[in-house]
Amino acid sequence: MIVALAGGVGGAKLSQGLATALPPGDLTVIVNTADDLQLFGLRISPDLDTVMYTLAGLANPVTGWGILGDTHNTLAGISGYGRNIWFQLGDRDFATHILRTERLRQGATLTEVTAELAVALDVTSRIIPMANECVATKIQTPSELLDFQEYFVGRRQQEHVSGIIFAGIEEAVPSPGLLDSIETADLIVFCPSNPLVSTGPILAVAGITEALRGSKAPVIAVSPIIGGKALKGPADKMMSTLGHDVSALGVARMYAGIVDGMVIDQTDEGLAVEIEALGMQVLATQIIMGDTNDRKRLALEIITFGSSLIPAKASI
Amino acid sequence: MIVALAGGVGGAKLSQGLATALPPGDLTVIVNTADDLQLFGLRISPDLDTVMYTLAGLANPVTGWGILGDTHNTLAGISGYGRNIWFQLGDRDFATHILRTERLRQGATLTEVTAELAVALDVTSRIIPMANECVATKIQTPSELLDFQEYFVGRRQQEHVSGIIFAGIEEAVPSPGLLDSIETADLIVFCPSNPLVSTGPILAVAGITEALRGSKAPVIAVSPIIGGKALKGPADKMMSTLGHDVSALGVARMYAGIVDGMVIDQTDEGLAVEIEALGMQVLATQIIMGDTNDRKRLALEIITFGSSLIPAKASI
Repeated sequence: MIVALAGGVGGAKLSQGLATALPPGDLTVIVNTADDLQLFGLRISPDLDTVMYTLAGLANPVTGWGILGDTHNTLAGISGYGRNIWFQLGDRDFATHILRTERLRQGATLTEVTAELAVALDVTSRIIPMANECVATKIQTPSELLDFQEYFVGRRQQEHVSGIIFAGIEEAVPSPGLLDSIETADLIVFCPSNPLVSTGPILAVAGITEALRGSKAPVIAVSPIIGGKALKGPADKMMSTLGHDVSALGVARMYAGIVDGMVIDQTDEGLAVEIEALGMQVLATQIIMGDTNDRKRLALEIITFGSSLIPAKASI
Repeated sequence: MIVALAGGVGGAKLSQGLATALPPGDLTVIVNTADDLQLFGLRISPDLDTVMYTLAGLANPVTGWGILGDTHNTLAGISGYGRNIWFQLGDRDFATHILRTERLRQGATLTEVTAELAVALDVTSRIIPMANECVATKIQTPSELLDFQEYFVGRRQQEHVSGIIFAGIEEAVPSPGLLDSIETADLIVFCPSNPLVSTGPILAVAGITEALRGSKAPVIAVSPIIGGKALKGPADKMMSTLGHDVSALGVARMYAGIVDGMVIDQTDEGLAVEIEALGMQVLATQIIMGDTNDRKRLALEIITFGSSLIPAKASI
């Protein structure tokens, strides 16, 4: 059993690689929900959807999010009513938000709804939200406190980030089964997701970091930073303005004490010594994931790397 | 000012004719909401939507309901999650249901939401639901009590109708402004809608029938039955199994005491004497509405007929 921690696109890609590298059912993906938002009365869970669509083989390979070939007529209709449609939602995608919202209003938990939707799409991996409670990432700029998606989509990540708040995090508890999955895992993988706003909220839910520290399984993180740049999204800019070293080393420092092994890009091999000094093993390889073969290849390398870490972890 | 009472397609067509025959803003359409349903957590108001789409020039002219050129990918997505999609909903159409539901959940009344949506679509006529409260038409068959849309769409109107119940009608009160619009109207028109399940629920809301009886304006009904058959829908079958004469005369009998003039098809001219015996004037003309010109032509004939009734009504 492997447990992956994932945000959006990068998390979804590696989760897919892991899913294809493992027997069906052997992967659990713990997904960030602090990016969730309420739009037109519907509950949107962008990271859960990206992971689910990718694992279901439905994802749009160009964007990494949304559904391949989806149309946008519902959103056009909403725009026709004079509403602001700053957040992209496809027609098939709306089905997800409509049914999620319906079930939540009926009293189902986000964990239950997520499982129902994923099973209906024949996803054999387990997808679990980090918590059933609502947590909302807020981005502090020098002049405003923005909702995450307002920063991320609305402002196209152009604002200077001077702080990050996970509103509601104190009330969040790990989803049912989440801590168990960590406890019984053979390997735990932090996908190449933004350490500040994707993995960060998951680690901030009470008990999750402690469970990871206490786990017998090796914990491996894949760097989302290559050569000082984020492959996707604002991780690099955020890390910079918040005073982190914008590198795989900077990521490793954030994960120090939790992670046993860092997977970094081969171009960053020069950082290996400093990362090892944080008490981690390093695997330097090709970490950019293109097609599904590439994702599986990286997943298999991570699994092999994980196996090599077991004795080290056991000796602690 | 003209007030029209409308159900779905027939009501929408004549409402459009009236709207084009009158200066902008001079038409108020009171719409049946007893066909409304909750689907996938969304509030669907089929008759309100049909009237609104038609008045906005968006309606699908082939079906009479839904939006011209609409796609059905949201519904396909919902079906992809294993849900039963017996009720047809287009993608642009979903925008209406999503925003209506959002606003209702925010505490807006159905009257407010309906006005907001119609204004956003540049509809200059006033569309008001019969009541803000939920009323649900139930169809009694020899073996079951069916929700209206289950009978109408799900069973394709094939069941024998032995009774009709408007659940919740006792708690319903006329929408704000509805009784005023009747009181200040110059002419009131019952569109060629099903007298049992379209006009029927409107007339059953406490105070509406009394207001119509008390109005100084002529009240004219257009027969939805021509030559013993309903132009659309199950009105003929329902009237038959419930013991009504399936004819314009049968319709007139249901409206006796409320309606001052019946507009019947020229092919039914032979019924005029018996209808007049109920205390109504009769206009026999071509009442099948094809294109928009046809709708306007009928509207103008009705307006002229209405003018001829004013002296008669004033003398009562």
